[in-house]
Amino acid sequence: MPLLFAILVLMTTSTSSSYSISLAPSKIPQLGMSSTKLKNTHDALTQKVDKSDLEIFYFNQDLDHFTFTPKSYMTFQQRYVIDSQHWAGAKVNAPILAFLGEESSLDSDLSAIGFLRDNGPRLKALLVYIEHRYYGKSMPFGSAEEALKNASTLGYLNSAQALADYAAILLHIKEKYSTKHSPIIVIGGSYGGMLAAWFRLKYPHIALGALASSAPLLYFEDTRPKFGYYYIVTKVIKETSEKCYNTICKSWKEIDRVAAKPNGLLILSQKFKTCGPLNGSSDIKDFLGTIYAEAVQYNRGPSYWVTSVCHAIDANPPTHKNDLLNRVFAGAVALIGNRTCYDTNMFSQPTNNSIAWRWQSCSEIVMPIGYDKQDTMFQLAPFNMTSFIEGCKSYYGVPPRPHWIMTYFGTQDIKLILKRFGSNIIFSNGLSDPYSVGGVLEDISDSIVAIKTKNGSHCQDISLKRKGDPEWLVMQREKEFKIIESWISMYQKDLRDLNILI
Amino acid sequence: MPLLFAILVLMTTSTSSSYSISLAPSKIPQLGMSSTKLKNTHDALTQKVDKSDLEIFYFNQDLDHFTFTPKSYMTFQQRYVIDSQHWAGAKVNAPILAFLGEESSLDSDLSAIGFLRDNGPRLKALLVYIEHRYYGKSMPFGSAEEALKNASTLGYLNSAQALADYAAILLHIKEKYSTKHSPIIVIGGSYGGMLAAWFRLKYPHIALGALASSAPLLYFEDTRPKFGYYYIVTKVIKETSEKCYNTICKSWKEIDRVAAKPNGLLILSQKFKTCGPLNGSSDIKDFLGTIYAEAVQYNRGPSYWVTSVCHAIDANPPTHKNDLLNRVFAGAVALIGNRTCYDTNMFSQPTNNSIAWRWQSCSEIVMPIGYDKQDTMFQLAPFNMTSFIEGCKSYYGVPPRPHWIMTYFGTQDIKLILKRFGSNIIFSNGLSDPYSVGGVLEDISDSIVAIKTKNGSHCQDISLKRKGDPEWLVMQREKEFKIIESWISMYQKDLRDLNILI
Repeated sequence: MPLLFAILVLMTTSTSSSYSISLAPSKIPQLGMSSTKLKNTHDALTQKVDKSDLEIFYFNQDLDHFTFTPKSYMTFQQRYVIDSQHWAGAKVNAPILAFLGEESSLDSDLSAIGFLRDNGPRLKALLVYIEHRYYGKSMPFGSAEEALKNASTLGYLNSAQALADYAAILLHIKEKYSTKHSPIIVIGGSYGGMLAAWFRLKYPHIALGALASSAPLLYFEDTRPKFGYYYIVTKVIKETSEKCYNTICKSWKEIDRVAAKPNGLLILSQKFKTCGPLNGSSDIKDFLGTIYAEAVQYNRGPSYWVTSVCHAIDANPPTHKNDLLNRVFAGAVALIGNRTCYDTNMFSQPTNNSIAWRWQSCSEIVMPIGYDKQDTMFQLAPFNMTSFIEGCKSYYGVPPRPHWIMTYFGTQDIKLILKRFGSNIIFSNGLSDPYSVGGVLEDISDSIVAIKTKNGSHCQDISLKRKGDPEWLVMQREKEFKIIESWISMYQKDLRDLNILI
Repeated sequence: MPLLFAILVLMTTSTSSSYSISLAPSKIPQLGMSSTKLKNTHDALTQKVDKSDLEIFYFNQDLDHFTFTPKSYMTFQQRYVIDSQHWAGAKVNAPILAFLGEESSLDSDLSAIGFLRDNGPRLKALLVYIEHRYYGKSMPFGSAEEALKNASTLGYLNSAQALADYAAILLHIKEKYSTKHSPIIVIGGSYGGMLAAWFRLKYPHIALGALASSAPLLYFEDTRPKFGYYYIVTKVIKETSEKCYNTICKSWKEIDRVAAKPNGLLILSQKFKTCGPLNGSSDIKDFLGTIYAEAVQYNRGPSYWVTSVCHAIDANPPTHKNDLLNRVFAGAVALIGNRTCYDTNMFSQPTNNSIAWRWQSCSEIVMPIGYDKQDTMFQLAPFNMTSFIEGCKSYYGVPPRPHWIMTYFGTQDIKLILKRFGSNIIFSNGLSDPYSVGGVLEDISDSIVAIKTKNGSHCQDISLKRKGDPEWLVMQREKEFKIIESWISMYQKDLRDLNILI
């Protein structure tokens, strides 16, 4: 499951007193892909799954759906994958479950997403997975190098274009399988969850319903949550271990104190076994902050990362002040594993995915995430929209449009707006997921509903089922399944009532 | 009220045996603006209205809402007009009625559209009129000459961009008047009616409801109506006068017969007092076909164009065959008025508006209108999509995307799709309007409703109220008003129930 937050977090907190996005490419914070970065250690998020029933296709996709200039007629090959083994076919209008990719390669999604293959057989559904433009192998302009070069090529990477891609591919699939009236349920997680909900709202003629897992679609400038992402990070760690929380609280000042010594950065570098020299104490602080966020966001069985991290932090009683550093270092090691040295930039090293996501979060998906007043575990570093905009503008040459999401999708007064408009959306959130603060947590209408669980972590409900899943998770998934099943039944009844021929 | 049809009609019928879009600019069929072309004669559509309460503004609009390339940050000045004299203000969340412009200058709309000013005082509403991009004074690229030059500049002219323009301006107006929760009702006619309905569906967070007058939003390739535009033209004329209908039926062969004589075109030219020489009998036939279509589409009091035309055609009993031509000529004169000569291209002379609309109908608004089998009054010339696409492609260098409207907005199975999705749309149609064949004529749900009248002509319900309006029209408008009023009441109640502060 991709991490939405890394770039945002790092962008707002990389220097604790004043935020700035560096113009030097090497300093620009990157998107972290937890499942990629951490899979060699404790990765509890993905499994080896049988992919032999998957067929891979490429669709000739329009680069630009919304202008009709000669340039917009450029196309690219967009990857999608189909599993048709369980599908009951067009004759019975058997349903289609479609996973809408987010900011990652489809390969990693195929290993992590369980909802489709776990429920496909029961629904006799055709399973479809679509990769998001500019990620994985779905690269316009012939190569990632070209596509990710600058604003002129990246400019076509945004959510409205991605939704139109999904519309075109899903219609294409319906034609290919000669099934005019198979209902489509779209499923997505995190940013992909936003896309799923938005897709149902913008393309109701294509998707009958949406399961939007851990979609922080209210986490924008016009609907900043009262308590932010790091409030939950703090809360979960504190609830896991008050002692752990206290250690982390104190550690920042200790890092600053050591850094301020003569050769302070060298001492820190040795303490944290960094692979390279440090540029400042913020290198360590950002590294640790990401560890805690990542541990909380993906805190689930069998590993329970927060427990591991806090267990390590709490393990040795402090003898003198420096032990604070040993302890937080032990926490990091518990998550990342024993290494000969630790790269403090490991979460921010540029990959194609992170470069693409950096563009998205610097253009329209501008989420005002920072260390706010309520986030008592961290040193204060709130998100500053003005400097964020300036940073993006100076880096890309074009400013973000932080209000565009609100203009196009609407985020304010969602309950008022959708109470009498739209239907068939599940917003699922685990309240232990820091992103849940930006999610829809209350039912909006009879069929636009919120499913929340106390313990759930980011996108946990749509991840692969496994033995030992807690009871609440099994029940949550079953509830989601039942709701989707009821949408499909209602639709099949409507088809009959309206005498629509198959 | 602009004519949607002219370019489409002429494109499909300009040569009766085989359609071709000519590459020579002078031969390209144009959009006709009935209220412009005919206003000096019988124009019953517009009145002189008091515009002293209207304030004109220009909004700095993004050229491209859906890509974020440096080029898409170009802006243009988009015109909108506000009448605030009746508005009860932000404190009581008084409503906003917003007219969404179609393919014409706002100046002509302001003279023709009555629904806002006739109902604004009763609702204590703020009245807003917004001009469509690339029409009137809302021209990108600095000038009409630049904007309308070729596909590279015209490429930004389409319905999705236009809807996003309206979204941006309406949010801007709400901010300007500091009214966060004033409900907005959008109103449009013809193509503008499609935009109004689509706006409610795509931007429910901005518009509470829509009145879509005479919106043929089902008249696309994937939902071709069983009986087409000219079926109604024929039907209305036949119902007005069987004799008139018979004369017109016979006239086409007579025109062909005369044209085939030595000097036949010269004889026709003299018969029809044409201002210039004829290129073929189709010049006359297209001219007459447009007269009949126009007469039917705008057939309303006090003039009743169909009655005038048929009265003239029926007036003199025929003595010999040629009198057929005298009679259909008399019909044309009845509509256009006495002139020293008649320009058979009068409906197709290029104007900025018609050039812009030609692009729209050659890119996405591809309506398959032709003389079909059922349209017995005309010589057969059905719409041919293949040759239409080829014609547009060779003219603009880029092909139309005739399925895009279906992909983005959904036109198939509208009843199935919207039965449980969306709310607050009125589709109004007069069944004597040829475009009604492409309209929504049945209720879809409790709040997505069809209002149809036997006698109504194109967009008649939203035109200016006048003394002598027939009873059914008065009642239709009142019904529309009451429905809109109920949406607003329900919304005000929801605001209170949800404890949303003003």
